[in-house]
Amino acid sequence: MAEKIIYLDRGFRQEFIDKMTELAPNYVIKTELEPTDLMNVEISLGWNRQYERELLASPGLKWVHSISAGVDTLPLTAFSEKGILLSNGSGIHSESIAEHIMGVILGYSRGLFQAQKAQAKKEWLGTHVHYQPLEKQKLLIIGTGQIGKMVADKADSFSMVSYGINTTGHPVEGFSQTYSLNEVEKVVADMDIIVNILPLTEQTKGFFNYELFKKFASHALFINVGRGASLKTADLVQALNEEQLAFAALDVFEEEPLPEKSPLWEMDQVLITPHIAGLTSDFQNKLMTIFLANLKSYVTNQELKINEVALQKGY
Amino acid sequence: MAEKIIYLDRGFRQEFIDKMTELAPNYVIKTELEPTDLMNVEISLGWNRQYERELLASPGLKWVHSISAGVDTLPLTAFSEKGILLSNGSGIHSESIAEHIMGVILGYSRGLFQAQKAQAKKEWLGTHVHYQPLEKQKLLIIGTGQIGKMVADKADSFSMVSYGINTTGHPVEGFSQTYSLNEVEKVVADMDIIVNILPLTEQTKGFFNYELFKKFASHALFINVGRGASLKTADLVQALNEEQLAFAALDVFEEEPLPEKSPLWEMDQVLITPHIAGLTSDFQNKLMTIFLANLKSYVTNQELKINEVALQKGY
Repeated sequence: MAEKIIYLDRGFRQEFIDKMTELAPNYVIKTELEPTDLMNVEISLGWNRQYERELLASPGLKWVHSISAGVDTLPLTAFSEKGILLSNGSGIHSESIAEHIMGVILGYSRGLFQAQKAQAKKEWLGTHVHYQPLEKQKLLIIGTGQIGKMVADKADSFSMVSYGINTTGHPVEGFSQTYSLNEVEKVVADMDIIVNILPLTEQTKGFFNYELFKKFASHALFINVGRGASLKTADLVQALNEEQLAFAALDVFEEEPLPEKSPLWEMDQVLITPHIAGLTSDFQNKLMTIFLANLKSYVTNQELKINEVALQKGY
Repeated sequence: MAEKIIYLDRGFRQEFIDKMTELAPNYVIKTELEPTDLMNVEISLGWNRQYERELLASPGLKWVHSISAGVDTLPLTAFSEKGILLSNGSGIHSESIAEHIMGVILGYSRGLFQAQKAQAKKEWLGTHVHYQPLEKQKLLIIGTGQIGKMVADKADSFSMVSYGINTTGHPVEGFSQTYSLNEVEKVVADMDIIVNILPLTEQTKGFFNYELFKKFASHALFINVGRGASLKTADLVQALNEEQLAFAALDVFEEEPLPEKSPLWEMDQVLITPHIAGLTSDFQNKLMTIFLANLKSYVTNQELKINEVALQKGY
C-alpha cells in the first residue's frame, strides 16, 4: 500500500511534529517532496505553488490548510470541483491586526505621526498639530468577523461608536448598528473612520473606488488591512489629492512590496506599513492549535473541526 | 465700597461670562487689569505672571484657579502663607493624555513609527519591523490618579497587566499591584513599559535619573507625559545610548520648546511630541464645568467644591 503523506511547506518545531505523528500514526510527514511523493500527499499544510499542478492532478489530495486567513490566492474552484477540504489560519492574526488598527487610529488622532515627521526637521509644532479626541467618533468597521469584533471592543474603551458592515447586514454584538455591503454608500459619509478588514472575493475586488471615496467625509481616516486588491490605488490617490478624505493608512497593496514608483510613498496624507498588521509572536504555536485540532478530527472522521473555508464564498 | 474683581487671564465665550455674572452678581469680570484694579482682584482664573508681584502683595486675592493640572510653576509657598485657595484643571486633559499614552504604546509595539521612518526613504521593511503583541505586557504606571486609572482601564482591553506607583503605595482599583515611590527601583526591571504621569514636586524633581534607568529592562519603553523636570535629560540620553532601555517617547521637556541643539531630536530611539498629550477639544466647556462649580460654592461659603490643591503637597 502506498504511504500517505502530510506535506508541510515549512519546518516546525519537533514538539509539533511529534504531536502530528501521535495523532496520525499512519502518515509520513515531509517538508520536501520527491516527484514520486506528489501523488501520495493527502494533507498539505500551506500551499506550495511549485507543486500545484501535480497536487491538483492527484486523486490523493484531500485537505489543504492555509497558513493565512485570506485564501484568495488559492485555486478555490479546483478545490471545490475535486471535493478538497480547505481550512485557514483565521484567528492567529486577529489580536495583532486589532492592535494595529487601534494604533493607527490613535497615532493619527493624537498627532503622533505628524509629530514624528516634524521631529525629523527639528520642528516643534506645539498646538499646530492636528488632533481629535476619540470620544463619540464614528468608526465603520467593514468586516464584522473576529478582528472586527475585537476592534469594536477596544474602540468601546475609548468611547467610540462602532458601526459594522457585513455581507447581509446581520446584527453583530458590540456594533451599535450593522449594514450590508450594498448599503455602504449610504453610510460612509457620516463616518469619521473607515476600516477595511474584508477578505478578497469577487464582490470585494476594487470595492474601494473613486465613486465610494467621493462619498467619504473630507476629514475621514481610511484604514486598509484587508487586501490590497479591494482598493483601486489610483482612485485613492486621486481622492486624497482632491481632499475627498483626509488620510489613508495602508498595510496591504495591489503589488507588494509597494513599487518604488508608487506615488503613495511621498504623500503626506498616507501612512504606509509593509504588510505588518498581522505579525504575531509564537506563530507556530497559534497555527498548530488550529491545525492539530483539525488533524485529530480529520483522521477520525474526515471532517474539519474549525476554520473550514466555504469554497463558494471564499472565506 | 471697592469693587471685587474676577480676573480672567484669557477671553471666554459670552455664555460662560453670563453664567459667572449670574452666580456672582457682586463681582466685576475683567480680562484686562488697570494698575488700580490689582488690589481688588479676589479671584484669578489663570495666573498672569505680569501681575504676580502686585496680586501677592494685595490682601484682596482669595482664590486662584489654575488652567492646567500641574501647578508646579505657581508660587505655592506664598499662596500657602497668605491662605489663598488654589484649584486646578485636573481631569480636563485626562482622556486625551490616556489616549496619547495608548497611541505611543501601540505605535511603538506595532512598528508604526519605524514604518513611517522607512516610508520617508521608500523602504519596505516587511517582517524586519520590530513588533511586540501587547498581551501580558507589564505596564508600570507611575501616578495612579485619574489619568493613570484611565490608562489601566484601556490597557486592560489589550490584555496588558497594569502595575501602579503612588506616594504611599496604597492599592487602586484597576491595578494588579501598587507600590510606593520608594519602591520604584525594586520593580522597574521587571516592566516592559514605564509611564510617568507624576506631578512635579520636590520629591519627583529629577526622579528619572541614570541610576534608575540603569535598572530598566533593555527592551523597555519609557513614556514621559508628566513634567520635563521629573527627568534628567542628559541621563536619559546616556542610558539610551548605552541601551539600558530601548525607546523613549517624550511629550514634556526641561526646556520647551525643545532647543534645537538637544541631542534628542536626532535619536532614532526617541519620539518627540511637542507637549500635545493633553490637547483636547471643547476646552472652554471642560474648564468652565470645574470653575463654575467652584465659583458657586465659593460665593456661598468661601469653599471650593472640586479640584482643590493641597498646597503642602503641591497637587
